[in-house]
Amino acid sequence: MNSKQTGCEGFLAAGIAAGIKKNGGKDLGLIYSEVPATVAGVFTRNQVKAASVILDQKRIQKATSQAIVVNSGNANCCTGAQGMADAISMARLTAETLGIPEESVLIASTGVIGEMLPMESIESSLPIIVEAMRPDGFMDVAQAIMTTDTFPKLHTVRQEMEEGFFSIVGLAKGSGMIRPDMATMLCFVCSDVAVSQDMLQDCLKKAVARSFNRITVDGDTSTNDTVLVMANGLSGVTITRPDQIRRFQQALDEMLMTLSRMIVKDGEGATKMVEIVVSRAATAEDAFKIAQTVAHSNLVKTALFGEDANWGRIMAAAGRAGVAFDPERVDIWFDTVLMVRDGAGCGAEAEAAGSRILQQSELTIEIDLKAGEARDSILTCDFSIDYVKINADYRS
Amino acid sequence: MNSKQTGCEGFLAAGIAAGIKKNGGKDLGLIYSEVPATVAGVFTRNQVKAASVILDQKRIQKATSQAIVVNSGNANCCTGAQGMADAISMARLTAETLGIPEESVLIASTGVIGEMLPMESIESSLPIIVEAMRPDGFMDVAQAIMTTDTFPKLHTVRQEMEEGFFSIVGLAKGSGMIRPDMATMLCFVCSDVAVSQDMLQDCLKKAVARSFNRITVDGDTSTNDTVLVMANGLSGVTITRPDQIRRFQQALDEMLMTLSRMIVKDGEGATKMVEIVVSRAATAEDAFKIAQTVAHSNLVKTALFGEDANWGRIMAAAGRAGVAFDPERVDIWFDTVLMVRDGAGCGAEAEAAGSRILQQSELTIEIDLKAGEARDSILTCDFSIDYVKINADYRS
Repeated sequence: MNSKQTGCEGFLAAGIAAGIKKNGGKDLGLIYSEVPATVAGVFTRNQVKAASVILDQKRIQKATSQAIVVNSGNANCCTGAQGMADAISMARLTAETLGIPEESVLIASTGVIGEMLPMESIESSLPIIVEAMRPDGFMDVAQAIMTTDTFPKLHTVRQEMEEGFFSIVGLAKGSGMIRPDMATMLCFVCSDVAVSQDMLQDCLKKAVARSFNRITVDGDTSTNDTVLVMANGLSGVTITRPDQIRRFQQALDEMLMTLSRMIVKDGEGATKMVEIVVSRAATAEDAFKIAQTVAHSNLVKTALFGEDANWGRIMAAAGRAGVAFDPERVDIWFDTVLMVRDGAGCGAEAEAAGSRILQQSELTIEIDLKAGEARDSILTCDFSIDYVKINADYRS
Repeated sequence: MNSKQTGCEGFLAAGIAAGIKKNGGKDLGLIYSEVPATVAGVFTRNQVKAASVILDQKRIQKATSQAIVVNSGNANCCTGAQGMADAISMARLTAETLGIPEESVLIASTGVIGEMLPMESIESSLPIIVEAMRPDGFMDVAQAIMTTDTFPKLHTVRQEMEEGFFSIVGLAKGSGMIRPDMATMLCFVCSDVAVSQDMLQDCLKKAVARSFNRITVDGDTSTNDTVLVMANGLSGVTITRPDQIRRFQQALDEMLMTLSRMIVKDGEGATKMVEIVVSRAATAEDAFKIAQTVAHSNLVKTALFGEDANWGRIMAAAGRAGVAFDPERVDIWFDTVLMVRDGAGCGAEAEAAGSRILQQSELTIEIDLKAGEARDSILTCDFSIDYVKINADYRS
């Protein structure tokens, strides 16, 4: 096994069909590092957590991990003591098959809530998936974690440093849930840098804040959300000095921002991707609150789907964000078209131009509060008839 | 003019087509009290407020009012100084036509944001609507404030007291917005009791907390939400003693709860009305937060539309409400069917029974936290393909 080809030294991966999904598609993924890797993770803040999340939160306390095993088609959530026993067992069986310590295996699941994992199918598939591991197997993992995703989400970053190159390979699944119950977001990132766990966790938190915490599809959060990073040091590049940290952070930011854009683009039923920017807010919190409220508004999102330059809905959503501002100072821009000046519409010509902007598959809506210097943005998508169809007709 | 027939002494009402709505339907309403009436009001908390809201908030500081003039088809919001001038002028013209003081007229609007009121149409219609006023004209007002509402919302309550009867007549418009931009909620209530303004305001606040603040259709709030109550004292019943206050409060609660149920029932695209109950919460705030988060969840609401007994989405929505609770103690009931016991599903039989409950047009979902003694509930509706159609295809 030679891991050169992946561009991420020392990592192997595979994805196969293990009979968990009813449609017979790929549903089991495995990522393996040839040596123990420093690990960091960020998880759902939902009070209701899948067994995999509870287990991983414990295991990443130990500084290193060596493998991640993941299934789709079943969330193993709200499954009680049996569910936790199954999660532990799935990790243990994986460790045994790989010949590594039990505690060095992390686990993730996505799919329907409240059903038991088909442990026999998983157990009998583990020798097959370990055999299938190869340096360029990440695309197979990206496919194995898809649910209603319409395309796999995989990205690679390569960064030159004085000591040589390092690489990051990452994959994610987005908000899709025909068969599963939740818009589970899973993301696994591998890098061949050497870095301390504290530093890796810190970089991951910052990158998540700039990427996954700045996107929305439907405002529901999952019981299974998991972002894991493993760094095995095999590139020979060590991250310790501030300039090294800065470049690693940039590379990790690029990775997660690229994956999070892919997730919004593939939002359930989405026909367009829209960046909601709030500028010149009095405080950073104000900017975030308004961006988030507008990005989540069903009325704004259905108007985007209808390609209706309905700026009144944007004003009204901003107004209920819990932020004090003067509506009569607000400007609203659709890309470069000024739609609202000082809280009032700019007339029929602006509206016609705005409607043309809305026909684009990507656009920016900027809400300029003229109240200060803070700025934030959230990436959202429109809200279509297909979103309702996908989520009403699920489990059939 | 004899107001006996309305069941609400001394009030006259009318609703006509004034050419504001493009479809030519009724769009101007007027409610008039033969004598100055004690007034109370509750308004949107949105930062972006229509001119009518700003004007009314000032005018109800004065203890009495004598008329409410309302239009649909135009929200007169985000219309700047001209919009405020138009609102003042609409009230002044109404006062002149009625021959009452300018300051005693209140105003409300619902419809599209950002367009100017057609003042000429309104001015020329005022003599006609004043001429049309009659004791049983409330249904015409209820029709004149409809937008995407599919039925008018009118209710009457009659209460026997030692001193005789008093009556309350109320009407509302709900969450519908094909042509308007917002789920504007308007509600006007008339009673013939004598009551102080402080007491009336207090009773109204309590009744709104139990009714309009316990319903949701899509989580968006309006720039124009207005609830006004006028009490003219002409029944001869005076509300001063605690037992009298209690009975008036009960009658007002019944009025607003009935109207708010009608609003949810007529929610845009809604096919069913669902009460989300949270029981045995540690605190009242916990109960409210969880009820509200579940009631607003797009994933829960699309599952209700799909009649899918998908309790995992309810667990997950509860889990992101920002309330600490133990998922492994949670029970979930669909009416009398126990779907989840101690955080885990009750099996195929319960699921089949739960699916049958979901086929009903009204049902209750109870989330029992077993954490304390607090309880709250929110009335919601399902989220259908028609909701998206209605809100995407608007303004056409």
